[in-house]
Amino acid sequence: MNRFWETRFRVRYAETDQMGIVYYANYLVWMEIGRVEFCRSIGVRYREMEEQDRVLLTVAEANCRYLAPAHYDDEVAVKTWIERAHPRMVNFAYEIKAVETGRSLASGYTKHVFCGPDLKPVRLPNKYWKEFGIPESPRD
Amino acid sequence: MNRFWETRFRVRYAETDQMGIVYYANYLVWMEIGRVEFCRSIGVRYREMEEQDRVLLTVAEANCRYLAPAHYDDEVAVKTWIERAHPRMVNFAYEIKAVETGRSLASGYTKHVFCGPDLKPVRLPNKYWKEFGIPESPRD
Amino acid sequence: MNRFWETRFRVRYAETDQMGIVYYANYLVWMEIGRVEFCRSIGVRYREMEEQDRVLLTVAEANCRYLAPAHYDDEVAVKTWIERAHPRMVNFAYEIKAVETGRSLASGYTKHVFCGPDLKPVRLPNKYWKEFGIPESPRD
Amino acid sequence: MNRFWETRFRVRYAETDQMGIVYYANYLVWMEIGRVEFCRSIGVRYREMEEQDRVLLTVAEANCRYLAPAHYDDEVAVKTWIERAHPRMVNFAYEIKAVETGRSLASGYTKHVFCGPDLKPVRLPNKYWKEFGIPESPRD
Repeated sequence: MNRFWETRFRVRYAETDQMGIVYYANYLVWMEIGRVEFCRSIGVRYREMEEQDRVLLTVAEANCRYLAPAHYDDEVAVKTWIERAHPRMVNFAYEIKAVETGRSLASGYTKHVFCGPDLKPVRLPNKYWKEFGIPESPRD
Repeated sequence: MNRFWETRFRVRYAETDQMGIVYYANYLVWMEIGRVEFCRSIGVRYREMEEQDRVLLTVAEANCRYLAPAHYDDEVAVKTWIERAHPRMVNFAYEIKAVETGRSLASGYTKHVFCGPDLKPVRLPNKYWKEFGIPESPRD
Repeated sequence: MNRFWETRFRVRYAETDQMGIVYYANYLVWMEIGRVEFCRSIGVRYREMEEQDRVLLTVAEANCRYLAPAHYDDEVAVKTWIERAHPRMVNFAYEIKAVETGRSLASGYTKHVFCGPDLKPVRLPNKYWKEFGIPESPRD
Repeated sequence: MNRFWETRFRVRYAETDQMGIVYYANYLVWMEIGRVEFCRSIGVRYREMEEQDRVLLTVAEANCRYLAPAHYDDEVAVKTWIERAHPRMVNFAYEIKAVETGRSLASGYTKHVFCGPDLKPVRLPNKYWKEFGIPESPRD
């Protein structure tokens, strides 16, 4: 069973479009919030990883399935967990729900490659392996 | 061979993030631009479909694979085509390139359901079938 | 002395640009968050005002002075208060600070006109006057 | 009489909100497009100024007066000119119109300070003075 983390926030007016619901690209912003807070929950502050260890989490793929529309001022919960991690990449998965109704709004995943400031792939420093659930002797 | 349409524009400063490249959610905005202009190219003005025929194109799924980073002020070309259309749904596919280098930046797809203003599924009015490439007697 | 309300949140990665700081237009999104939460604090749920009373708060003017840059993952506090209110308009003022350092990041204001769903000006229904601090017999 | 430049583009769906009009913060994004294209028109590529000369144009103040709403798929024209320039700062002004109707949608200004990559103020390199309309012997 994977560890997960749930983050909550309210839908911003800026996030809606003229259909009266949240514009679809904003779910990817919400996933970003989810994974940052997930990282914080496992003891990794993404900002420090970027500033101190010069490791960036570039995105290789993003996917979102939209199940029900989210509305302005709805409280939304993003549940985030790691599906697979490796010294060179990590995949996150997400479930997005409306808090009040419990209704599932969307599910999705993002696949990431660890990169240096030059955006070339690097291996994640060992000190982060445990937090990301990478075993001691991973196959590269 | 499917008809396609190519739209070009420049990367906005607002679309970059502190990694110095375009933030990943903005590719979905670019796909939206691509499909709106694709629709215009086949004679469908999306705005009129929404205003006059009360048909909205809600998003059921979005996917993007990121191949190379896009930078501020790059000229970007979004190639858009219909992968599959049906009176109840339509799937678009996209290829995003850097114009100057010809480099492929991303590819992706979006799946849509035709809905009424109440966001409940509807059948696309017949008058649009030809443009979307839907045969006269589709299986529903 | 005006009543005020303070809202806190963290800077999103999506809100930064390649300068490594928050993109300037996002401060207006933060002001929107500030005034929504201010309204909630005085007993007005903006969503209900829009849905039930058909009153929209359109923006007539926005201003922001940028004092110090905000960075990714900073916790930010938006202090919001009403500068002037009237049955036809309301002006909000804002101070935006970095929570950790207490440093002032920006100050600004927005001027709004109450409108109907057709975006034509309307008078604010009496039941909201008290909350917005409008006296019983305002000069129109 | 100041030189000006006019840039045109179409309103994106992403830029609308549930009021059915363009969300107010996006006008600042449009101003950014306006000033980048203005700079290009006077022979200054902002991207090169940032990359090669390490000069950033940070924003000190932004103001927008909203005159009429902009709608999805409207063609919009942003007219941009320099109101005042100096080796340490530059002020841009903007007029935003709907192309089809000629209607004025908004007007505004932004005030900028030239900064280095550390976001500390610097003097604009001499080679850019002429383009920005700064006289040979400005008072600092």
